Amino acid sequence: MIQLLGLAGMPEVQAGDDLASHILAALAAQGETLRDGDVLVVTSKIVSKSEGRLTALADVDPSPFALSWAAEHNKDPRHVEVVLRETKRIARMDRGALIAETRHGFICANAGVDASNTGADGVLVLLPLYPDASAAQVRDALRERAGVDVAVVISDTFGRAWRTGQTNIAIGAAGIAALRGYHGEVDTEGRTLRATSVAVIDELAGAAELVMHKLDRVPVALIRGYAYPRPPAGQPDEGATPLVRAGDRDLFR
Amino acid sequence: MIQLLGLAGMPEVQAGDDLASHILAALAAQGETLRDGDVLVVTSKIVSKSEGRLTALADVDPSPFALSWAAEHNKDPRHVEVVLRETKRIARMDRGALIAETRHGFICANAGVDASNTGADGVLVLLPLYPDASAAQVRDALRERAGVDVAVVISDTFGRAWRTGQTNIAIGAAGIAALRGYHGEVDTEGRTLRATSVAVIDELAGAAELVMHKLDRVPVALIRGYAYPRPPAGQPDEGATPLVRAGDRDLFR
Repeated sequence: MIQLLGLAGMPEVQAGDDLASHILAALAAQGETLRDGDVLVVTSKIVSKSEGRLTALADVDPSPFALSWAAEHNKDPRHVEVVLRETKRIARMDRGALIAETRHGFICANAGVDASNTGADGVLVLLPLYPDASAAQVRDALRERAGVDVAVVISDTFGRAWRTGQTNIAIGAAGIAALRGYHGEVDTEGRTLRATSVAVIDELAGAAELVMHKLDRVPVALIRGYAYPRPPAGQPDEGATPLVRAGDRDLFR
Repeated sequence: MIQLLGLAGMPEVQAGDDLASHILAALAAQGETLRDGDVLVVTSKIVSKSEGRLTALADVDPSPFALSWAAEHNKDPRHVEVVLRETKRIARMDRGALIAETRHGFICANAGVDASNTGADGVLVLLPLYPDASAAQVRDALRERAGVDVAVVISDTFGRAWRTGQTNIAIGAAGIAALRGYHGEVDTEGRTLRATSVAVIDELAGAAELVMHKLDRVPVALIRGYAYPRPPAGQPDEGATPLVRAGDRDLFR
């Protein structure tokens, strides 16, 4: 059995905050202690806030391109400018939507720039610069403070092609393999399965959303009882990077 | 807290089988009984098998188009023919991959036609014709037999644009709203959230995959403790249909 538990009572995160301490305190307040093999799913927003990945609109001088798109679609040109600065490539710019490829290779609306629950008016939250490193940092701090070996997944809310609605997916990870592969394994009837790779960190991020609440302050979920795949021994932990499909292997860019 | 429980010990499903009976028997064998508000996630494969949605390759006469594509990519032309018969529109046909839009409007590899764990050699499993109706049937049968009001989600394993790896998503549902909306709601800081709709049945399907096992026989998961959104009172239950993005609203077809 797998258990999903939302961590309520986290404080408003400030730049420089130590997320591991906040997480351990929130767990203690709920009478929980971490165990080896637990998975912690942390929303990117509090990671970004702790890393100071914030931009005040007042400091932004929009480019002519940002001004023109913003005027056409009734948006704040400073907000558009911040989105463009977070963008490596624009995948689509149509009907008021700006679907961007971020420097990490993620394809999402507005390059992940977010104006809700940012902590102050006129402030935007940007995605963490190196989400895998952020996850590793939280994981290492939890091992130091609590002596536990856990996996950490950093989640964000993305839309998808073809399907309406958003889901939480993984943008960073540490201590867990992103994909569980069934390459060449044999099914219950003795046939070799076609190459199948399940993006388990995306499924964990989506599962965690079910105990988080967009409107409340539940930015962390504990997932217990999932025997997750580990990064291959003796090799670097690739985090969520394997989930980025290379451009030349993507039929829908 | 939310709990995820895989149902082991399900028998091999045959055409005409009553899935609700199988599910109740497997639950009883694990010492569990259903409760109001539980969610059952059922893999489409056993739904298809119970509905006889199977095709024997031996009965298939491939068209010239199927023969040509199969020869070029070293595939079984009869398999390709079955995929084409399940296809409303081909989204991409490139590098050996056939990404199809099914009659339901789902976009996925091979129109959801599957050759693994089909029950016999040379047999393909097709997606259920009306997955929402299939879900409603299981839900109604569980209410009749066990007197419980549960939600049923029918899942399948799909790839995605832009991200490697597959995840389980919902192709049918009953007794639950596909989307949880935050339209115009106010965040913790008093700002109005931009329109956000979370595809909760996809997140439930993905969560369920974590307790299913591709190689074992765990085709059903029980999810307990999730206060899911209900279909609006007095309106028809739309199942998973709201997740199909209309062609004219999709920037990535």
